[in-house]
Amino acid sequence: MAALSFSPGLEGVVAGTTAISSVGKEQFGLTYRGYAIEDLAAHATFEEVAFLLIHGALPDAGEYARYRKRLAGLRELSAALKTVLEQLPAKAHPMDVLRTGCSALGTMEPETEAHGAHQIADRLLALFPGMLLYWHHFHRDGRRIETASAEESHAGHFLHLLHGRPPGELQRQAMDASLILYAEHEFNASTFSARVTASTLADFYAAITAAIGTLRGPLHGGANEEAMRLLGRFASPEEAEEAVRAMIAAGEKIMGFGHRIYKKSLDPRSPIIQQWSRRLAEAAGNPLLYRISERIEAVVRQAKGLYPNLDFYSASAYHLCGIPTSMFTPVFVFARVAGWAAHVIEQRSANRIFRPVADYTGPAPRPYPPLATRG
Amino acid sequence: MAALSFSPGLEGVVAGTTAISSVGKEQFGLTYRGYAIEDLAAHATFEEVAFLLIHGALPDAGEYARYRKRLAGLRELSAALKTVLEQLPAKAHPMDVLRTGCSALGTMEPETEAHGAHQIADRLLALFPGMLLYWHHFHRDGRRIETASAEESHAGHFLHLLHGRPPGELQRQAMDASLILYAEHEFNASTFSARVTASTLADFYAAITAAIGTLRGPLHGGANEEAMRLLGRFASPEEAEEAVRAMIAAGEKIMGFGHRIYKKSLDPRSPIIQQWSRRLAEAAGNPLLYRISERIEAVVRQAKGLYPNLDFYSASAYHLCGIPTSMFTPVFVFARVAGWAAHVIEQRSANRIFRPVADYTGPAPRPYPPLATRG
Repeated sequence: MAALSFSPGLEGVVAGTTAISSVGKEQFGLTYRGYAIEDLAAHATFEEVAFLLIHGALPDAGEYARYRKRLAGLRELSAALKTVLEQLPAKAHPMDVLRTGCSALGTMEPETEAHGAHQIADRLLALFPGMLLYWHHFHRDGRRIETASAEESHAGHFLHLLHGRPPGELQRQAMDASLILYAEHEFNASTFSARVTASTLADFYAAITAAIGTLRGPLHGGANEEAMRLLGRFASPEEAEEAVRAMIAAGEKIMGFGHRIYKKSLDPRSPIIQQWSRRLAEAAGNPLLYRISERIEAVVRQAKGLYPNLDFYSASAYHLCGIPTSMFTPVFVFARVAGWAAHVIEQRSANRIFRPVADYTGPAPRPYPPLATRG
Repeated sequence: MAALSFSPGLEGVVAGTTAISSVGKEQFGLTYRGYAIEDLAAHATFEEVAFLLIHGALPDAGEYARYRKRLAGLRELSAALKTVLEQLPAKAHPMDVLRTGCSALGTMEPETEAHGAHQIADRLLALFPGMLLYWHHFHRDGRRIETASAEESHAGHFLHLLHGRPPGELQRQAMDASLILYAEHEFNASTFSARVTASTLADFYAAITAAIGTLRGPLHGGANEEAMRLLGRFASPEEAEEAVRAMIAAGEKIMGFGHRIYKKSLDPRSPIIQQWSRRLAEAAGNPLLYRISERIEAVVRQAKGLYPNLDFYSASAYHLCGIPTSMFTPVFVFARVAGWAAHVIEQRSANRIFRPVADYTGPAPRPYPPLATRG
């Protein structure tokens, strides 16, 4: 059969409508429900943004206070979920821990009319950092930590559980801004997979579990970890420049650069996280990682014409917040679950099952040979 | 922004190429790697078909014997996985148990170069029935069952673990044929979701976990359970006819009829499973459920012009094999994992990340109002 024309990876194919975010559209830039990402990162908190994405409008002062309080009250793990997490090996990939924990929670606190998408979204938002860090501390030093904290913000809560003490204010703010930047990005692969799963009217947890698994791949969420592994190899900007030039000459991909949507323009999230990376480096009196990052950016831009995407300066920023590299993609989950939830709710509001077709390139019809005649 | 034209649910949109199966193509019908579904259901076993789908060719006699033996040797659960399964509540949805068990296994037996897609596919094929039935028997009567069995076939193994004794030969054969029919169906929603997840180069378990969650939805795998719930409401064909006519008049959807791909033709799998349903009913001396099914088929065909799909006669066939209705969709998993595995392997062989675009229908850019000014 002759191949039909199609767009590999559905590049440029419209797969649905959305009112949640505009990405890379002329005169729009990146907006969440109409608000520019630059304004949100500068003035809002992650909790405000999560509310905006999931509920469709910014909260007023009363709604905001109640929402933060509600999320803070949903941070505790059940005994059964702790037991499940303890069974997952110390060497497991942290993303697989979140994927399994999310799926298991779906059996323990299943979706019902009374406990629906909005309630589950809040619970997952509140619970994911504690889920990961309970498993982390249990296996690292046998401690069964409390997953409640007095931290009002999601960003502060995560850093507090990670380090076992309140974070510095700059770290808390940088993490908050980073969560805002990672919260939503239209029909990226993980969000698209959440919508595909939701389109069979599967339960909410099924869609989020699928999205976590999809985000795990190195071509998607894994990119910030790969960027960190690259940065960590160099002792100076000069060494980084030499190595990256050699990588480019050898045709190797430099993780954290380029983006299918931002081909001819800057990822608008990149300068924002870059500023946080610079401020964290200055405050720490440790500019090396930031300078290496700047140098690599200049080399890749000059040699390949590629701009950094959100993942590139996130790597140095997260490192300066003391976050282990293997948790970079899980942090992406802590943020993006807000966008995933909004998309599942939107998908359900005007659903049609995703069932594309394939161009068949296999063998022509052939007779079935009995087993004894084969080989 | 004006809506761009697009096809909701990607209906009719080519999302990739495949050499695994042809579905609904003129002069092809339904084939797995070129072999007609009618031939495979009549002459092959499920293990042969799984080998064909995953490895790309029918096994010869030696390969076949080794493959069956290998699968039979992979049926045991680890202690840690048993502990996880014991934590999942008795009232959990069996599909959520499989989804969680699959994801947890991914942390315990992670994908590596030495333990890759083919090995994991075999393990999941062999393990899924035992995973479900360990959980089932533990919660139903507190028994921790052995998940190995002397059954050579996958079909016999499942029925043996379910009932705690060797199944009758007719049941074993009917189940084997049913597994063949459910094993693969091109870019259906769950398979498409497995490919979307795999396209970020996520691990094998992530793709299968996503597919299980997607299959769970009532618009996809849940249809055979819905068909059984319908059948179970009636005491006679006459009662069924009256009720189904009333449902149609009220605009209600009758589950198990119609198919996006087989709009103007019969699902070729339907007459095959119908014959098995009839034989099982005759052998059991219990023709009522089959007669009710036939009557509903005639009514829906006459009133709506719709044909039954695979799910419709599967319901009565499974019921006559003593399978609880809540396990119908899990049985679909036991079979379809072969197709999912083949598609993940194929997706990886010529990968491009799935990242379509959305038509933005949300608010125009607007200024961010400070919190104190809202409400």
